[in-house]
Amino acid sequence: MIDARTVWKDVERIRQSAPLVHNITNYVVMNTTANALLSIGASPVMAHALEEMDELAAIVKALVINIGTLSPGWIEGMRRAGLAAREHGVPVILDPVGAGATSLRTDTCAALLTEVAPGIVRGNASEILALAQATCGLVAEGRTKGVDSAHESAAALNAATALASRFACVVVVSGAVDYVTDGLRGLRIENGDALMPRVTGMGCTASALIGAFAAVNTSGLAAAGHAMAVMGVCGELAAAISQGPGSMQLNFLDALYTLCPEDIEARLRIIPLENVAQQP
Amino acid sequence: MIDARTVWKDVERIRQSAPLVHNITNYVVMNTTANALLSIGASPVMAHALEEMDELAAIVKALVINIGTLSPGWIEGMRRAGLAAREHGVPVILDPVGAGATSLRTDTCAALLTEVAPGIVRGNASEILALAQATCGLVAEGRTKGVDSAHESAAALNAATALASRFACVVVVSGAVDYVTDGLRGLRIENGDALMPRVTGMGCTASALIGAFAAVNTSGLAAAGHAMAVMGVCGELAAAISQGPGSMQLNFLDALYTLCPEDIEARLRIIPLENVAQQP
Amino acid sequence: MIDARTVWKDVERIRQSAPLVHNITNYVVMNTTANALLSIGASPVMAHALEEMDELAAIVKALVINIGTLSPGWIEGMRRAGLAAREHGVPVILDPVGAGATSLRTDTCAALLTEVAPGIVRGNASEILALAQATCGLVAEGRTKGVDSAHESAAALNAATALASRFACVVVVSGAVDYVTDGLRGLRIENGDALMPRVTGMGCTASALIGAFAAVNTSGLAAAGHAMAVMGVCGELAAAISQGPGSMQLNFLDALYTLCPEDIEARLRIIPLENVAQQP
Repeated sequence: MIDARTVWKDVERIRQSAPLVHNITNYVVMNTTANALLSIGASPVMAHALEEMDELAAIVKALVINIGTLSPGWIEGMRRAGLAAREHGVPVILDPVGAGATSLRTDTCAALLTEVAPGIVRGNASEILALAQATCGLVAEGRTKGVDSAHESAAALNAATALASRFACVVVVSGAVDYVTDGLRGLRIENGDALMPRVTGMGCTASALIGAFAAVNTSGLAAAGHAMAVMGVCGELAAAISQGPGSMQLNFLDALYTLCPEDIEARLRIIPLENVAQQP
Repeated sequence: MIDARTVWKDVERIRQSAPLVHNITNYVVMNTTANALLSIGASPVMAHALEEMDELAAIVKALVINIGTLSPGWIEGMRRAGLAAREHGVPVILDPVGAGATSLRTDTCAALLTEVAPGIVRGNASEILALAQATCGLVAEGRTKGVDSAHESAAALNAATALASRFACVVVVSGAVDYVTDGLRGLRIENGDALMPRVTGMGCTASALIGAFAAVNTSGLAAAGHAMAVMGVCGELAAAISQGPGSMQLNFLDALYTLCPEDIEARLRIIPLENVAQQP
Repeated sequence: MIDARTVWKDVERIRQSAPLVHNITNYVVMNTTANALLSIGASPVMAHALEEMDELAAIVKALVINIGTLSPGWIEGMRRAGLAAREHGVPVILDPVGAGATSLRTDTCAALLTEVAPGIVRGNASEILALAQATCGLVAEGRTKGVDSAHESAAALNAATALASRFACVVVVSGAVDYVTDGLRGLRIENGDALMPRVTGMGCTASALIGAFAAVNTSGLAAAGHAMAVMGVCGELAAAISQGPGSMQLNFLDALYTLCPEDIEARLRIIPLENVAQQP
């Protein structure tokens, strides 16, 4: 159901409508995620003050909540923005950065999953495992190592399926291979490059791009799949001309900007996974 | 009155004196605006704590207030820094990011205009329209779309003139064409490139550079005009060798650093506008 | 005792173990210091909330405290993280950005030096002079100019020695020439390039890298010396292919990533300083 043609169709929609994507995100990646959104054709707005969450919800097309540099003062803004977004029918994406590393992060995500019910959650394997353990009763299998994953993405596929079913959302596990699932169906995306995790905030950028795609496509599975496909293809295009993480960071933005249907057609490696539902 | 020679003279003054420019700015652009100030030859300091605003005012040569990621805690610091700057004769530049998008932003800018009376205000057309509507009784003509302008800059020329007259300041409307006015005289600057708005924070960078120029030139109209001329010329130089927003961001910094009088001479397209005062 | 071979050995240790380095740092440099840590092979985590400092101390290998955009709310997190790190035997690095420019900064650093007792302190000459004046009774010799140094690094060698002796720590004065001392012995590192101070946060990046080296080497003098050697060598490699501060920033990250023993062997200019103890 997802192929190079559907990916490209959404890229075109983004470029044509320049959807306003509201990000409550961490200090580390604000610049790079704003630039990624501009590069793909969307219009980013970064804002976190409780006082303006309601007004913004009325004009934005997607909301991305990222807990990367969390503090108590920001949690209330995230919650309010999330609830206002739901009220306005604005899709909400949650990026649980570092969930599992500290209880502040795990608990905040669990609360947001319950109260805000984001339509899409994207994390690395360690983060998705931690969330499933905290909310679905899965048995712990180790601990998040800071904000980088200590697990292969495949190790979190069951956790992702459980989370997706429990919260009726789409879950993305990103890594060398990306998985996307709504609890029943799933996708396996094999694009990407080993240089990507050497650039800070590539996961956060993926979540921001999911916001742009969710703004133009009401299917969470398609929006997340299309965004991860674009991430992977642009990562490959950028890595092919990069000498290290510095040039990679900028070449990736250029690749988002110059992406064309031929690039996607030539490179996309996406595999549908039928019946990912957990065997109890 | 403003030409390639006067632009270059101020660039030389900045490179020779490395004026300390205090920025209270948003999380998204702190890195890029600090780098832009260093690249043109100024010395940036980013600080927002209420506790150090008075001491900083005694040593800095300009203050740039940018409300891009506003929160109530920062407003008091902005106000205090602005008042201290005025007391020390330090020029104040206001960047009303997203004014019109939420009342927190519009109201904060209106309060700063009244209480701090910045010498220079720089915004995109939507922001300047929103400020003029909020403070000068202009009739609304649509709404700011997040932090990107929904209007051509020319549409805000009357609003800029009204604002400049009302608050005895210089107002810059930046866009594909930039306008600078003190309420009586004006400038139209036609430099720049379409790739510039695809890099986040180019407007914020313009405001930061205005701070550097205001530190070496007591005429607000000249300082703002010179800064916008340098923005436009460097934007063209950078765009000519860029593949997208990623390479544009870094090539722009390199262009600020390597800018020479011949570049300005060859490219500057600046047109004086006499008698921009509104016809009532 | 420190040479190209020992520098390279620590680089290899970092690449092999990818130590988790906790940074409580300023908004300006969060992205670039995270990228520098990833580029050298470490794993960065940026977090500042009081609520998660204890948990993080149990899993990280080094803590870097940087006061660049200080506010009262963050000071308590810095103090708590510092004390927890000491309890867990985690090395602590302090970067006193702008000490001397405002009393908030000077006083906060003095308090952290006393209460947390960081193992390594890295600043520019003005900052180290200001700290020594505030805590060791040295006579003032001018004032910090914002966050850029107003002094040559050699002018702060006595101040560094006094600080190192008073707080039983290693002190680094970075500049065109870098000095490292534990109060008795010292190092003079002559690597680097004039383009480095034109990129914002190069000093902060040095402090972050010291964190990575301190995570794999228990000698503070060696860790700091190795990190400054890598900074200087990579700065030279990057500057050789850069057109200005924009390309410098990214080429520096690429250089950290592609650094090889031959580069260090060919370029390292490190001179041991025996008996740097102050003549009273």
